[in-house]
Parts: sequence; C-alpha cells; structure tokens
Amino acid sequence: MTSIPGIPAAAQSTRLAHLDAHTYRDWAVGEHSTVLLPAGAFEQHGPHLPLGTDAILSTAIAEAVGSRIGAKVAEPLSYGYKSQQKSGGGDHLPGTVSLDAAALIGQARCIMAGFLAQGIRNLVVLNGHYENYQFLYEAADLALADAGAGHGHGPQPTVLLLSYWDYVTEGTLATVYPDGFPGWGIEHGGVLETSLMLHLRPELVALDRAVSHPPAALPRFDRLPVVASRTPDTGCLSAPDGSDERKGALLFEQVTAELSGDVATELGLPG
Amino acid sequence: MTSIPGIPAAAQSTRLAHLDAHTYRDWAVGEHSTVLLPAGAFEQHGPHLPLGTDAILSTAIAEAVGSRIGAKVAEPLSYGYKSQQKSGGGDHLPGTVSLDAAALIGQARCIMAGFLAQGIRNLVVLNGHYENYQFLYEAADLALADAGAGHGHGPQPTVLLLSYWDYVTEGTLATVYPDGFPGWGIEHGGVLETSLMLHLRPELVALDRAVSHPPAALPRFDRLPVVASRTPDTGCLSAPDGSDERKGALLFEQVTAELSGDVATELGLPG
Amino acid sequence: MTSIPGIPAAAQSTRLAHLDAHTYRDWAVGEHSTVLLPAGAFEQHGPHLPLGTDAILSTAIAEAVGSRIGAKVAEPLSYGYKSQQKSGGGDHLPGTVSLDAAALIGQARCIMAGFLAQGIRNLVVLNGHYENYQFLYEAADLALADAGAGHGHGPQPTVLLLSYWDYVTEGTLATVYPDGFPGWGIEHGGVLETSLMLHLRPELVALDRAVSHPPAALPRFDRLPVVASRTPDTGCLSAPDGSDERKGALLFEQVTAELSGDVATELGLPG
Amino acid sequence: MTSIPGIPAAAQSTRLAHLDAHTYRDWAVGEHSTVLLPAGAFEQHGPHLPLGTDAILSTAIAEAVGSRIGAKVAEPLSYGYKSQQKSGGGDHLPGTVSLDAAALIGQARCIMAGFLAQGIRNLVVLNGHYENYQFLYEAADLALADAGAGHGHGPQPTVLLLSYWDYVTEGTLATVYPDGFPGWGIEHGGVLETSLMLHLRPELVALDRAVSHPPAALPRFDRLPVVASRTPDTGCLSAPDGSDERKGALLFEQVTAELSGDVATELGLPG
Amino acid sequence: MTSIPGIPAAAQSTRLAHLDAHTYRDWAVGEHSTVLLPAGAFEQHGPHLPLGTDAILSTAIAEAVGSRIGAKVAEPLSYGYKSQQKSGGGDHLPGTVSLDAAALIGQARCIMAGFLAQGIRNLVVLNGHYENYQFLYEAADLALADAGAGHGHGPQPTVLLLSYWDYVTEGTLATVYPDGFPGWGIEHGGVLETSLMLHLRPELVALDRAVSHPPAALPRFDRLPVVASRTPDTGCLSAPDGSDERKGALLFEQVTAELSGDVATELGLPG
Amino acid sequence: MTSIPGIPAAAQSTRLAHLDAHTYRDWAVGEHSTVLLPAGAFEQHGPHLPLGTDAILSTAIAEAVGSRIGAKVAEPLSYGYKSQQKSGGGDHLPGTVSLDAAALIGQARCIMAGFLAQGIRNLVVLNGHYENYQFLYEAADLALADAGAGHGHGPQPTVLLLSYWDYVTEGTLATVYPDGFPGWGIEHGGVLETSLMLHLRPELVALDRAVSHPPAALPRFDRLPVVASRTPDTGCLSAPDGSDERKGALLFEQVTAELSGDVATELGLPG
Repeated sequence: MTSIPGIPAAAQSTRLAHLDAHTYRDWAVGEHSTVLLPAGAFEQHGPHLPLGTDAILSTAIAEAVGSRIGAKVAEPLSYGYKSQQKSGGGDHLPGTVSLDAAALIGQARCIMAGFLAQGIRNLVVLNGHYENYQFLYEAADLALADAGAGHGHGPQPTVLLLSYWDYVTEGTLATVYPDGFPGWGIEHGGVLETSLMLHLRPELVALDRAVSHPPAALPRFDRLPVVASRTPDTGCLSAPDGSDERKGALLFEQVTAELSGDVATELGLPG
Repeated sequence: MTSIPGIPAAAQSTRLAHLDAHTYRDWAVGEHSTVLLPAGAFEQHGPHLPLGTDAILSTAIAEAVGSRIGAKVAEPLSYGYKSQQKSGGGDHLPGTVSLDAAALIGQARCIMAGFLAQGIRNLVVLNGHYENYQFLYEAADLALADAGAGHGHGPQPTVLLLSYWDYVTEGTLATVYPDGFPGWGIEHGGVLETSLMLHLRPELVALDRAVSHPPAALPRFDRLPVVASRTPDTGCLSAPDGSDERKGALLFEQVTAELSGDVATELGLPG
Repeated sequence: MTSIPGIPAAAQSTRLAHLDAHTYRDWAVGEHSTVLLPAGAFEQHGPHLPLGTDAILSTAIAEAVGSRIGAKVAEPLSYGYKSQQKSGGGDHLPGTVSLDAAALIGQARCIMAGFLAQGIRNLVVLNGHYENYQFLYEAADLALADAGAGHGHGPQPTVLLLSYWDYVTEGTLATVYPDGFPGWGIEHGGVLETSLMLHLRPELVALDRAVSHPPAALPRFDRLPVVASRTPDTGCLSAPDGSDERKGALLFEQVTAELSGDVATELGLPG
Repeated sequence: MTSIPGIPAAAQSTRLAHLDAHTYRDWAVGEHSTVLLPAGAFEQHGPHLPLGTDAILSTAIAEAVGSRIGAKVAEPLSYGYKSQQKSGGGDHLPGTVSLDAAALIGQARCIMAGFLAQGIRNLVVLNGHYENYQFLYEAADLALADAGAGHGHGPQPTVLLLSYWDYVTEGTLATVYPDGFPGWGIEHGGVLETSLMLHLRPELVALDRAVSHPPAALPRFDRLPVVASRTPDTGCLSAPDGSDERKGALLFEQVTAELSGDVATELGLPG
Repeated sequence: MTSIPGIPAAAQSTRLAHLDAHTYRDWAVGEHSTVLLPAGAFEQHGPHLPLGTDAILSTAIAEAVGSRIGAKVAEPLSYGYKSQQKSGGGDHLPGTVSLDAAALIGQARCIMAGFLAQGIRNLVVLNGHYENYQFLYEAADLALADAGAGHGHGPQPTVLLLSYWDYVTEGTLATVYPDGFPGWGIEHGGVLETSLMLHLRPELVALDRAVSHPPAALPRFDRLPVVASRTPDTGCLSAPDGSDERKGALLFEQVTAELSGDVATELGLPG
Repeated sequence: MTSIPGIPAAAQSTRLAHLDAHTYRDWAVGEHSTVLLPAGAFEQHGPHLPLGTDAILSTAIAEAVGSRIGAKVAEPLSYGYKSQQKSGGGDHLPGTVSLDAAALIGQARCIMAGFLAQGIRNLVVLNGHYENYQFLYEAADLALADAGAGHGHGPQPTVLLLSYWDYVTEGTLATVYPDGFPGWGIEHGGVLETSLMLHLRPELVALDRAVSHPPAALPRFDRLPVVASRTPDTGCLSAPDGSDERKGALLFEQVTAELSGDVATELGLPG
C-alpha cells in the first residue's frame, strides 16, 4: 500500500490494530467497509517450520488481499481447533496447543458479531488451518443471528468464509508439484506451506532441519485415541522436498490475485 | 537475546510461534520451562493510539521479561473482555470489539490447559487490559483443574496472573506524573500508555491528533446502558498531555526489571 | 443374520434397541463388543427423496456392516448439523431441521461416553451427512476424555469415525457415473443417494417427481446469509438422472464390504 | 391412513422423514400444520422388553394420533434423560445410555425451534420416558423464545407437552390391573409397558424371560449414588405378571383416542 | 436447640451462615457432618401469601429437621425454576422471577460440589418448589461426578433429594382437608401452604386478602405459551379456604418428624 | 419504615420476598420501581465472623437504602465467586463454598432479566464480595440484552452496579482507622467488616475468638494453586483489632446516606 500524503502512516495500515479509533470510525461507516479475519493455529509443523505457520500464512495472505481490495485485516485467530491426525498429525504432538469447539466458536462468534454490530458491511474469514472450517462456519452463522441479520430494512451484512488453498489453481499445482500433486490431505508441513514460508518469512524456516520421508499413509477413518505411529516422526504428513522460494512466490501471487478478485466481485467492491 | 552460534536464529526466539516443534519439544520438558501469555484487547484508545495498544504493550513487556528470565512468549490474546466505561470508555465506542465472559474464559482456559498438558511447568499470564483480569483468573483456575493439578505425585504446575501496571513503582509514577498521579481508574489512552507506545512503537502513535481535555469524572457505580456523554469525546479517560518517549522508556525498563525479578524469584528460575 | 436356534429372535438383532437388557449386558462385556452409531440428518433432498435420507442410508449401511462383523447398531442420530449450501443446499430450505454445533456435540458426546462407561470396547461412528463430521469428531474426543481414556491399566476403548462415501472405490464411481464423476461436493440428492435409496427403500423414492437440471455451480467460499438462487430450485445440487437400483446395489455391496473389512482389521475383530 | 389415489405413497405418510421436501413445503404452510415429536429413551427394561421400549411406544402412539388428527410425526428423540431409580431403576444399569440435561435440552430446543422457524403452527411433544419431562419443558420454552413467540402480528405457534400415560383412564386401569393399580412410580417394565409392547411389537418381547418378583419398595427421596440393591435384579420396578396383548390393545386404543381428541380440540384441528 | 454453655451462641446455630469458619472446620470433618440445602422460589402465591413462600417453608422445615438430627442448614436457593401453569400458575405472572434450567443446575451443582469438596459426608436437598426437582437431581448427579464419587477408597459422600410434601401422611391430609384432598397438582397458594405460613410466619400472611374460588381446572398437557385465563385471577390454583394455624402446626410437626426420622435412618446418623 | 395505616404490615416491607403478588404487581408498574439486589458470598471470615458476613452486610445496607429511597430489596445472592487469596484468603479454606463464573453469571443474569421483563425500571446491584464484581457486570450486560434494552420506544431500564465500600469517605476511614488505613486489599475479616457486624448483628460476632496478627503480605500477582501459607492462620487478611460497634454505626450511617443520595440522584427518584 503506497503512502497517502497528509494521512498519518498508521492510519493507512491494512492492519486494523494499527488504526486509531477515529480513523476506524470514519472508515467503518463506509459503504464498502470490509474486514478480513485470518484464522490459524498454534500447531507443530515439523522440525523446519515454526509453530505459528498457519496464522502467519493466513495473515500474510489477508494483508495482501486487503491491500488489493481496500479491506482491513483484523488480528488473527492465533489458536485453532484440535489438530487431527489426517490433516495435521494429531493433537498429541508437542507444540500443538488447541482450542476445543466451544472455545473456538465462542471467540470467533464474539469477534464477528462485534464487527457486525459496529456497522461493518462485509466480513471475510480467511482460514489457514483445515480443522477450523466447520467451527468458523458455526460462529459466522451465530454471529449473523446475534446481529439480527435478516431482520430490519437497512443493508444486510455479509460473511464469506474460505480456506486459502481452495484458490490454488491446477496450473499452480502442476508447477509446485512437478511429479504430481499428492493431495491436500497430507499437505501438512509439506511443499506448499514450506515454499510459502520461504517466500514470506524465510528467517523462520530451518530448511536444513527438514527430513525427507515418504508421505504418511493414513486410513479412511479418524481413530481416537490416535495410533501415534501413523504420523511420521517429523510431524509432517509429507516431506518438504523440493520446496523453494520461487514456488512460494508463485503460490502467494496466484492465490492472492485469485482470492482478491473473487471476493471483490462477490462483494461488489470497487475496482 | 544474543544469538547462540550453531542454533538457528528462529530457535532462539522468545516467541513460541517462531520455534519449530522439535526445538519446542526439547525446551518444554526442561525443569524451568515457563510460558508467558500476554493478554490485551481490541479497543479504542482515542485518536492518537492504535486499537491494538493493550496487546502490543503486554506482548512487548512479555518479550522483554522472557529475554531476561529465559521464558518464552505465547501468541497474545488479542481480543479482551468488554470495555467498561470506568476503565476503558465503554463497549459502545467505535473500534472496540470484545469477547464476552464465556468466550474469553473458554479461549484462555483451553490455551492454558494445553500448555499444562504438554508439561510446561509455569504459566505467567501478563495482562494489559484491566477488564480481563477476573476472567483470566477463572480460566487459570479451570485449566489447572483440567490438568489435574493437586493430584498425582509429579511436579505441580504453577500459574501466575498479573497486570503489568501493578509493577509501576511510586518513584516511577512521580517522574511520569510530575503534577500528581491521577489514579489508575482513568489511565486509558493517557500518559502511561501513550509514553510506552512512543517508546516501543512510535510509528503507531499520532501525537498530533491527541486532544487535551480534563480527566473524565466518573461515578462510583457502573451504569448500564452507559450514559455515553460521561466518556470524553476522544474516548480517552485522561489526556495524554506530557507523554514522551523518555517516560515510556523509564516505565518499560522499570516494569520489566521489577516484573522479571518478581517472577523469577517466585518460580525459582535460574539467575 | 441367520437365526440361531434357542436364542430369541430379538436377542439376535443387530439393532441394539431391540435387545433386552440382560442380553445386552452379556454381550457388552465381551472382548470385541463394538457399537456402530449411524449419523444422519433431517434435511431436504429434493422432490424425489425423503427428508430422512441421510439417516436411512447410514443406518442401513451400519446394519449390513454390523451383520458382517458381529457389531451392534445403536439408534441413529436422526438430526444433523445445519445444511450448508455447498454440500446440502442450505439450511433455509423447507424440510431441513438442524441441530446447532453445541446440541450435536452434546448429544453425540453423551451417547458415546455412555457406551464407553458401560465397557463397550469399540465405537464406530458411521456418518451419512457431510456437515456432521467435525462435530462428531469433537464429540468423540470429549467422550473419550469423559471416559478417562489414556488413564488406568485396563484395555483402552477405541472410537473410529468415518463417512461412508469415503469407501466408494474408483471402480464403483466409474460404473455409477459413466460420463465422469462430478465430484462429492454436489452429490446431494444426486445419483449416488438416489440409487442407494432405490436399492434400499424404493417405496420412499418418487423418481417420477425428479427434475433434470445442470449441476449447481457453487463458489469456493461459503456465504452467509446464503444467496438462495445459487441452489437449484429442486434443492438437489445435481440431478438424479441415470439413477437406478442396480447402481444402488453395487454401491451398497461395495461400500459395506470395504467398510466392514477395514473396520474389522483395524479393531482386530474375529473373522 | 388410507391411500389417496394420485399422490405417491410416501407423500401420504404420517412420518415426516418419509416425505419429500416439496410435499413437506406445501403441507407445512397449511393453517393446521401440526408436528408430533415423540420422546423416548435408550434404557434397560428388564430381561423381556427391548432397550428401545420408550421410544417405540411414544412413536407408535404418535403415529396413531397423527393418523387420526392429520398431524405428522417427526423422528423420535431416541435417547432420554438419565434413568432415575424411582422411575426407571437407575442410570447405572447395563443397557441404559442417557443424555445429560444440557444435551437433551439442546437437542429438543433446536428441533422445536427449527420446526417453528419453518412455519409449523403446532408442535406436540409426546413423551414416553418419565425423566424427560421437565427438560422437554425447558426446551419448549427456549424454542418459543428463539422463534420470537409473543412478538409480531402473525399467528402464534403453540407447543403442547404431555406424557402418554396421563391419558390412561381409571376405567382402563381397572381392567389392566384387576388386583389394583400399584401406582405409576413403579410402572417400569411392568404390565402397562409389557402389554403395550405385546400389542404393538410382539416380536420384540420375550415373555418367557420375564421374572416374577414383588414390586420395588423405594424411599420417598432420591439417593445418589444409588443403593443398587433397591432395584430388583431384573431391572423392572414391578413384574409384568398378567401382561397380555388384549390389555395392550385396550391401552393403546383408549389412550390414542383420548389423546387425539384432547389435542385436536385444544388446537382447533378439523374433525 | 438448647444453648450449650461455654460455646458461643452463634456456633450453636443450625444455620451454617451464622457459624464462624473455625467452628465450621471442626464440625465439617466429623463422621456425620450433614448439610441441609433448602430450595425454594421467588414466585407469586396469590394476594395473601408472600413471594418468598417456597423458600421460607423449605428453610423452616430444614431448620427444624437440622435441630432434630444435628445437621446444619445452608443458605437456601431463593430463586427457582420457571413456574409452570399446572403447578404454580405460570411464569408470566407478576411477582415470579425464575432461573432457567442451566442457571439453576449450575448454581446448585457448584454449591453441592463445594460442600462435598470440603469433606461434608451427607447433603440433603430439601425442595419446596415443585418445578425445581429434576434440575436439582441433575445438579446432584453432576456435583457427585465433580467430587469424584465412586473413585478412591475413602468414605463416599451421599446426596439425598426430596420434596417436603412427600412426607405428609394420609392421616394428616385427612385432617387438613376434611372434605377430601384435591390433589397435589393444585396445591399452590392453597390450604397446605397457607396453613404452614400461618403457623410459621403469620405476620407475612394477609388472610383477609385471600379470595375464595373454585380450584383451577387444568389440562393433562402443558401448553406454551400459556393460555393465561386457565390460571385463576388470584394466581392460586386452589383457594386457601379453611386454612388455619392449627393445621399448619400439625403439618409442620408431622412432616419434620417423619422427614427427620427417614433421613437419620438412611444416613446412619446418631439418635 | 413507619407503618402506614390501612395497608397490611407485610405489604409495607422493603423486602420483596415478603410482599404478596398483587401488592408487588401494583408497585412494579410505578414510574420509579427500583429493585436492590444484594450480592454476597458464603466465605470464611476468620474465627470471629460468620460465614455469611458478605451477604448479611450487603443485605442490611440494601434494606437501609431501600427504606430511604423507596426501593425494594430482592433476595440476596448468598453464594459468590471463588474467594481469591489477595482479597478473601483463598477458595481452599474451610467454610468457603463458591460459584464458578458461569454459575454466578447465569444466576444473576436470570434474576435481573426476570425483573426487567416484569417492567421494573431500575435495578441496583449492591455488591458485598469483592470477587463478584466483574461477573455481576457481565450478568447485567447480558440481562439488558435479554430484555431488549436499546430497542423499542418505551422507557429504557437502567442497571447500576456498585460495591458498598466505594462509598466509604476519607473522613470515615480516618475515624475507623486512626493509625492509617491499610488498604482495601486486606480488608477481609478486619476492622471494617467486624465493626459493621458488631453494629448490625452483634450476636453473630465472637470478638473473644478474634486473633491479633500482622496484616497479610501478599504478592502483586495471583498464584494458582495458592501458596496456603501466605494467608494468615485465622483466614483474615488483617486483624480486627480496634473494631467496635461505634465504628460500625458510623460506617453504616455514612455509607447508606451517601449511597442512597447517589442512587436517588442518578435514577431521578423522588425525595
């Protein structure tokens, strides 16, 4: 976002937490006021990626999207729903600290209802942790009811909920996984997340600590308590072999462009 | 924190979210593993301070304390309990998005119970938003019960809960408020928070937008719904007149030193 | 299940609700006692399928699996989580009566914890309504905690959670959808459910009321409140064109065989 | 219900789960749309009656009432509140799997609120498990509040809540218990339930396994934890001695007639 | 209770709230420490009885029982579950302020669990408001689970739950209602409660304001929202005609004697 | 309150529980109907004060205030939030039986919402237990939302929340603590509470059992689980040395006068 002369730098931030209240107030009543709420997790991502990977990625994408479409980014949900073995290795692994369903729904509901009560027109929840999705959906549904959506005569607020990986195109996948895409199910600590982190926060990636191993072979059911040995020792469901910054840049640019366009069109945001 | 040769930079971070899972695992089982959990709010702080002030301050203090005592800082609670008129101007003001009691308790409880379940010995909740305190207390009490504290034969986990302003000394107050300390009740958006922000995040302070006005005169009761006119138009309960970076530095250094010493002594942490 | 001479018919049922308490008691303490819990919904499935389709299908599959592996079937969860537009057309449609997250989790948790408290060794939750899955997962996790799983020295109970469509093979899909499988996302009221119902409960299918229409084109996000016009007028996300009893029989036989084998192997059930 | 020519059989069902969504939609908006919601339990009923007895009976009565008064029957609540020693023998007995108060209230509230939100005019909750009653009352009260009952200008929805045994007349009791009625308190697994089951589902009754014993002598208080020896070994509070199909038929006919008349009159349903 | 020389008067109280903490501590660890917890309501009782009638009566009975059996009386639950039309006239009537199920269960559970955690051996919940009973039962069940009842090797705590009117004998009824007992269902503001209040708290009874009217004729179902006209204008379900102090004395003496004996025997309390 | 001829004594009570329903009804619809809700605790107060001290004091103050300003007093909240070491010695001490946050909020919310639903204009929550305050605030906020405050055109209800000690003036403190006020933090079982009790309920004070000891030296943080030795053996945080009835009378008169005036002015009550 380029600096606008005469307006203090902080007031031009895409990050809502950096705005002062009066700037916020003026912005919020605008016809197109849109808040992006990134959701992540505090979850092990193997020996080479940081615990905060999911929130770091969803927040970075949200900030890029916000810059493109003139939306503001709320503070992320830094803790997510329990890691499941088939998508995140399991909640038993060191480094994973999770919310239960009630806590995640309660937190997200209050935040969404709070923004809606302040007249924000559009909320876009940008999810970066697979396990969160259904609980965020419930939170959105309850928050809209709290806000009285569907009643009254004024303009109705809108909530969009999405996971950023649903915006990766086939073309991008072909480039990122030249030997064939192994499937979203085991993309935990693998090439996609590692490449994105190498592009966005290389100082937090210890690629020399990464371990090569075959992808996890996981059953069609969830089993609880988990059979720990089904998760590879690294905690990753597939190895980050072949990750690089260039793939990360491609993923990031493609996803933020696609996502920005989709959201702006849906919400009728100006250019 | 100075860099330790041979260990990746990220692994030396005080920020837990920047650690990889294996580094975390090795650290967590240590005899003195201590997690600092900063709590803030997303709350109007007048025309000159950012909405995220409370979490920014508690996180910055936590990071400084962590560096001093060898503790790690968890991702902050970025949203807090409803702003009350007598301490934060009121929950009706634009820019304030809050959690209700159940959501705040639920979130904090899960996070604390999660760290305790992973064998963390000590949790220190470092509060930066007055209204949070009792709900964080409840969360800590429930999390300890979840973790089975009081049962079994192993070492028992400990939770400390504190608000950083309780570590400001009389001497510091005398310097920061040369005309007399007006009381904690109206220190919202005032000299203490503004000076700390000028020291820590000057780019987020728009001192030229600050407005001088008499301190709020508030009743001995809370009234709901609030009488909005009792909060000054700025949203601050006292004006930031006389704030400067030097006062901020003094506050920050004094509080982090005092707080570090107190916590380290209480928890028996090494030097 | 063939009748065993000398044992009353009801006592040989796969349906737990048909057992008397003393027969149940003797069975429950067995080394391999396994309860199948079908989960469905009360949800519109267009003009040609009954509202109870999801529970009817998951219960029928559970009964077939139970017969094969010697497990018993508990009364189904007949009401499910809110229908989402991208998998069920939306919760606003007439005929859909749903549970919210708390109610579904609470119900499933109590039932699972109740069976575990009675010494049942294995619980298999057999889901037939996409939207339920994550809430059933939370319920299973909480129920195991209620039952003290992970503590004590006795044999540990196991919970498996699965959706029956994850057991449809590529080969079956090729036969059922000779023109190409359109994807699970829009399999609501379509060929799979209709064919299965034609096989299992033809008297409840009004194929002459079915309407042909193109598959729904749905966005990559969930939007709330939904844009109603995105769901086809029938309420189905794809038309049941080409459904027949033979496809239903194939699906049913293949899935129950595959699922039975997988579960029996995982749980170490005899023969 | 006799078949109506030209309308598919399923669409004529009294069972809502068997209707298709479009038939439901047309029916629901009618001036007299009435849903019967049977509530039961999954509870031991001795060695001669099935675990599902309570839901089987309340559902059978609901279907008969529905046929008489043109109402439809929703899927039953198959799990009920904890069995109490003085009415069901106690929740500790094998075969009894119960919901706690929050789960039962939550489930019933969502279902009722869902039907009311769809414009259903009348809900009749037909209880078949003594312990459920007060929790169903709470659910009904909350569901009406959810539905905004008491506000607005349209027709107001009505909920009736009843237990079927309150419709057994003195005359019927005299015939069923020629030696004197021992009281409702110990009618668990006794003559009433056994006779009704012999009439309705004889294949699920193993009368040869029934045991004769004196009625339970229970105190005026509830004690928790229960003194297990106060419940007879069978689990029944009174023996089914003297049960027969004829008594069951009498009970069933008398109760469904009385109940149908009462409900139709109260709700102003057409003859 | 006669005064014991050398022990301060307050320490001899049956009312726990009047004990000092050290006297309580010594008493609580005794082998037979028994706490009576009266439960009432804040509910209209017509024009002649006070709103607090239910708690006044259950507390008075508890104090008399406590004196007889050496038990102590905890502060009463002064607010009860929603008044139902068939037992209390309905929750819509002026003067009735009620708890919902969750609030009543939560409050009673915490209090019971608190006493059990302090080593109290026996809890007797003495109910005086019909609608409370099932919610108090749930609270007792949950509190025992909280207290770990059923685990460990020490003496197990016991909870008894009862309503005082279940201790009125046939003989007493014959005297109190010489023209025949009209049934417990309509004993709200009637002869039993009025006579008891005339005996125990005559200054709170305005018998000259009592109105004579026929007993309420109420249906076999509960209807919500209530048809207000079914409750007599007074709010009483039967008129207090014929109430007098002598009947109140008889009821009080008979019930407290019977109840004391029953409880003392059950709990093995000394003579 | 002097007796008014022609109106029954009970109807003139300040205690709502002593009113009959018809008197209540007429009073509640008045333009200035104001209910005072005292909140206390069941908490150890050392060897010389009764366990019910907090509720006794807040109720006595409420009754005096009610007499002065024509308000009525609801039944007190007799159980409070968990005792914290820094204000009440800690929840582990014998004699302390507490509510958790959810139970206290739930109870207070229902009671407040109930009064507001009956048309009461003003609610004044008069707190006597430090730990309660924030939970009562949450309850008030939720109750106002339940009551639809802020919507509609009628007069809006008001809730005031206060702790009585905030009305003690500097002048009074100087008299009560001639050697200097030690601070509110350790006023538990000390001179203020003891003197008030000597004035109001001398028969419940065993001053000869009081123990002299230095005030507790407590840290700036809360620690959980508490280090029990930080609380003096008596359970009091400061000794009651120097308490007397005269100080109690002064405190009582000054506080009730000040509080009555403040509340009457704020609410616009007559005279």
